[in-house]
Amino acid sequence: MKQELLYEGKAKRIYKTDQENVLWVAYKDSATAFNGQKKAEIVGKAQLNNKISSFLFSMLHKKGVETHFIQSLSDSEQLVKKVDIIPLEVVVRNMTAGSLAKRIGVKEGIPFSNPIVELYYKNDDLGDPLIIDEHAIFLEAATADEIQFLKEQALSINEVLKQFFKDKGIQLVDFKLEFGKTASGDIILADEISPDTCRFWDIETNEKLDKDVFRRDLGTLTEAYEKILERIGG
Amino acid sequence: MKQELLYEGKAKRIYKTDQENVLWVAYKDSATAFNGQKKAEIVGKAQLNNKISSFLFSMLHKKGVETHFIQSLSDSEQLVKKVDIIPLEVVVRNMTAGSLAKRIGVKEGIPFSNPIVELYYKNDDLGDPLIIDEHAIFLEAATADEIQFLKEQALSINEVLKQFFKDKGIQLVDFKLEFGKTASGDIILADEISPDTCRFWDIETNEKLDKDVFRRDLGTLTEAYEKILERIGG
Repeated sequence: MKQELLYEGKAKRIYKTDQENVLWVAYKDSATAFNGQKKAEIVGKAQLNNKISSFLFSMLHKKGVETHFIQSLSDSEQLVKKVDIIPLEVVVRNMTAGSLAKRIGVKEGIPFSNPIVELYYKNDDLGDPLIIDEHAIFLEAATADEIQFLKEQALSINEVLKQFFKDKGIQLVDFKLEFGKTASGDIILADEISPDTCRFWDIETNEKLDKDVFRRDLGTLTEAYEKILERIGG
Repeated sequence: MKQELLYEGKAKRIYKTDQENVLWVAYKDSATAFNGQKKAEIVGKAQLNNKISSFLFSMLHKKGVETHFIQSLSDSEQLVKKVDIIPLEVVVRNMTAGSLAKRIGVKEGIPFSNPIVELYYKNDDLGDPLIIDEHAIFLEAATADEIQFLKEQALSINEVLKQFFKDKGIQLVDFKLEFGKTASGDIILADEISPDTCRFWDIETNEKLDKDVFRRDLGTLTEAYEKILERIGG
């Protein structure tokens, strides 16, 4: 049973349920980029992201990854375990792209010999800055052991997703994960995995099938996201 | 013998000499901040920084730190070993201040339980961005082993400087180091250590005795730098 609104983010509304440790997530049709500076309502986005993320979280669960996902409720809604979100965006990169390419002044699409993991401090007022482990520890966002666990988990998830998408003709360029702590103290994967949070490039054509379509005005976002949903067979 | 100008930076001119592996450094009276956006000519700054840096490099040499410093030539000039500068700014922080305090949204002056070392990519066009080790390795700024060496050296230097300045009634808040490679491949401390590259706070009064006086219009830069020179007995 959906109860009162607990939190409204840029892409989702989170509601309480009649179960203490279960939340109701309703995806929104909102697209935002550049820390909220670019915004649009895009009909159909909520359903696409909910379906894609539900599919990927189920798939990761089967591969042994602990996640907050319980079940899909409707095309745009799902039930998840309640967690305290760790205020770190854990970004895995297989190739240069986006903000990193700009930061270090290199072209997009250069592969890393090993995937790299970055931490960004989840704080809209600060623009989610890149930080180093020592900053995260100082901020008490996570302990040193927790950071190591987050990075290991992120790299494991990357191996699963990279191979999965490769088999579908899609290059997983980079993606952002969020983790949360359950009431019993376990750290599990939370938030979403969707074209909002990943860079997907068609392996043959390099066509962008992710939020860069919106960020960079490259076409119709829902068409790109639908291609992802079709390819993964979700 | 001073020969042709090799390079002119924001704070120094570097000349060739008649010796292949020796350079002539002439400090400038220029003060710059915010990646060159704020500029001024401040008579006397060249001499103060040359004297302070010469003193500190000599002191570090006595403590076993390998540096590029050979000898002071005049009030504003010195001879140094020629090195290929590693394009990383190695920043050691004992307390929150400056760009870090802004980045992570905390007050200045909060001590770290252990000093932290950050790497910034030396690139004016990019605004010397904070990077993680993996970025530096990807950029071929340094190898993983070299980065470990730089961090260990930086922390050792911090221990020497922190204690030295504490004895003079000065809190060493943070500082930036640069390292370079000699012709024989050794990595040694280069550039300068001065109130341009360190944050010095009076332990009793918290008075700022460094470039923040210029950055934040807190008074007369040369008066602050002179206090540092006097205190260290240089």
